Amino acid sequence: MQNFDYKIATRVIFGKGRENEVGKHVSKYSKKVLIHYGGDYLKEYGILDRITKSLEQNNIEYVILDGVVPNPRLSLVKEGIKICKEQNINFILAIGGGSAIDSSKAIAMGVEYDGDVWDFYTGKATPKKALKVGVVLTIPGSGSEMSESSIITNEEENLKCGIDTEIIMPEFAILNPEMCYTIPPYLLSCGIADTLTHLFERYFTPTKNVVITDYMIEGAMKALLEIGPKLKKDPKNYDYCAEFMWIATIAHNGTMDVGRASDWGSHRIEHEISALYDITHGGGMAIIYPAWMKYVKDQDIDRFNQLATRVFGVTNSDKEEASNEGIQCVEEFFKSLGLKTTLTEANIPLDRFEEMAKKAVGEAGFVGRFKQLEEKDIIEVLNIAK
Amino acid sequence: MQNFDYKIATRVIFGKGRENEVGKHVSKYSKKVLIHYGGDYLKEYGILDRITKSLEQNNIEYVILDGVVPNPRLSLVKEGIKICKEQNINFILAIGGGSAIDSSKAIAMGVEYDGDVWDFYTGKATPKKALKVGVVLTIPGSGSEMSESSIITNEEENLKCGIDTEIIMPEFAILNPEMCYTIPPYLLSCGIADTLTHLFERYFTPTKNVVITDYMIEGAMKALLEIGPKLKKDPKNYDYCAEFMWIATIAHNGTMDVGRASDWGSHRIEHEISALYDITHGGGMAIIYPAWMKYVKDQDIDRFNQLATRVFGVTNSDKEEASNEGIQCVEEFFKSLGLKTTLTEANIPLDRFEEMAKKAVGEAGFVGRFKQLEEKDIIEVLNIAK
Repeated sequence: MQNFDYKIATRVIFGKGRENEVGKHVSKYSKKVLIHYGGDYLKEYGILDRITKSLEQNNIEYVILDGVVPNPRLSLVKEGIKICKEQNINFILAIGGGSAIDSSKAIAMGVEYDGDVWDFYTGKATPKKALKVGVVLTIPGSGSEMSESSIITNEEENLKCGIDTEIIMPEFAILNPEMCYTIPPYLLSCGIADTLTHLFERYFTPTKNVVITDYMIEGAMKALLEIGPKLKKDPKNYDYCAEFMWIATIAHNGTMDVGRASDWGSHRIEHEISALYDITHGGGMAIIYPAWMKYVKDQDIDRFNQLATRVFGVTNSDKEEASNEGIQCVEEFFKSLGLKTTLTEANIPLDRFEEMAKKAVGEAGFVGRFKQLEEKDIIEVLNIAK
Repeated sequence: MQNFDYKIATRVIFGKGRENEVGKHVSKYSKKVLIHYGGDYLKEYGILDRITKSLEQNNIEYVILDGVVPNPRLSLVKEGIKICKEQNINFILAIGGGSAIDSSKAIAMGVEYDGDVWDFYTGKATPKKALKVGVVLTIPGSGSEMSESSIITNEEENLKCGIDTEIIMPEFAILNPEMCYTIPPYLLSCGIADTLTHLFERYFTPTKNVVITDYMIEGAMKALLEIGPKLKKDPKNYDYCAEFMWIATIAHNGTMDVGRASDWGSHRIEHEISALYDITHGGGMAIIYPAWMKYVKDQDIDRFNQLATRVFGVTNSDKEEASNEGIQCVEEFFKSLGLKTTLTEANIPLDRFEEMAKKAVGEAGFVGRFKQLEEKDIIEVLNIAK
């Protein structure tokens, strides 16, 4: 186990109807907030009304900036920063999933910075402070509601970049499982797939002696494999929604990967795909992850064997074969969610692999920790994913 | 799953040699602290020296109050309160295990209260504020380093009472696995047993639909069952110590039992035993827990069967028999740690069951949530434990 620091700054407020408490929580921080979201469903289902009502009851002014889309755009972030600066807004309330939250985090950093907020995403500058962010989560899967990550798409440069910094970890996150009732079926599948890969990305570690975190990650995987299909069949079942919402959160809030290095190589590859072709991230991960697994398997066959036997119940005593069966189980699981598992099935052109690989490795020249992947490796992974 | 709030206030600083950073962390809060501990080993092994040196390097004054014993005494708490009030100390640095931390938490509350601090433990008063507490953990098992609990023994009245309040959750906890090297073998066994029962107490819940937390608790149990015996054989193995230290912490910091009711009935029974006979808590739990399990099993045989099959690998398809086998595995595990599993073996007199049962249920008239136990039930449990 590696040395580590662990601090969860976000207060979770979990359960039925708890978005009605949002005003009480916001009032600890601010009297004037930016509400940031995307999608008409928030109005349709009355969610926005319940939230603004709670703010009004607590005498909190608000300005609304909607228009967030999957792979949230830098241009909208800049618009949000401008509004906050002009109107002296000092708190961002994100409503939605990863896109709305990541966009809100970007705005929060940008308001406290005189330069171009994109500098933080390219590593040109390091954020020193940020406005506080609160979240009403409507689409689980990204884990952004308790994470220190934000990923933004610079649509002019066809770039998708991320930043990790403790200062953007949300102050609170309201998680009402009932919100899941309104997730469109495809996005629900993407959220389940994204959550599973968040667990994989922590599981595939080069760190040795990680017994407790291995078992915890495996436990979360088993819960997701059990609940995911049930939820797909019965998407308005409160109990299934509650399980899924909490799995998605705990998978990505820092609890599962204390003392161990994670591997985000596959994530980086997928980002290049969704930057170019605008596929939903979880959908892209269902394509890339099995390919990544096949390519890196020999790096630590014991670990792949452990996944196969402990999580998928594979009984083959040959480690190599068991590992292959495990990877097949992962692929089958994604398919069972109705997701595509090859680039061709997803209608993604196969002619820009070199460009994607080059962008994915960036200046470092590689991605990943379980196995470091250079450009040529990424092209191989993409070829497997064809 | 029940509605819940989840907030972990404690920053964990985990790893080799990290007690040398204590001054830096304390300096965020105070320039004058009370160091509170018990046991000569802190001096012998140079731990106290390292800590005071780090404080001095950060220009932090300190007053030392040692003398904490297992089942920490109210009289020493009162002495600590007096010192802090007289010397304007506003931060308590606990060094040790559950006893030193619980005693420190009690002092922290008492300094900010004009009445008798024992009022908080009897429920006569509710604490409004407390000094901040920091921890350098030397004996894992109690989980107190990240919990909102404090348990104190009123030696004049032969009473052991606890309180739970967010205001006493430590601000930081420094966990250096090397500290475990110095734990005497019996106390190490007690710590392992205590940790396992902390997991059981969360596992045995009346709440339905707890899939993710079930799997996480089971994962932690499996890790402990795997690491515990290895650690007993090789107690200066850093990796085993690290695993154990983190299992003990995560078992008790609120992560495992979100959205589910826990059952602390067995804990309450054990407290009456250790209040009267001064057995170490974990040692007492190894006696009471199997007896408790046997008595309450029929309340939810499916849950006992799930424990037996998923955690202990029992394959018996008869639920009743599988459950019994599971309980036997628990008992065997405690025995393998060198712990006694009956009152008689532990030389505890059998003639005060009624008195203990009466005290355990207190004014509520019962303990427990998985199964509510009244006085007569507790006497039965104690009879099983004979």
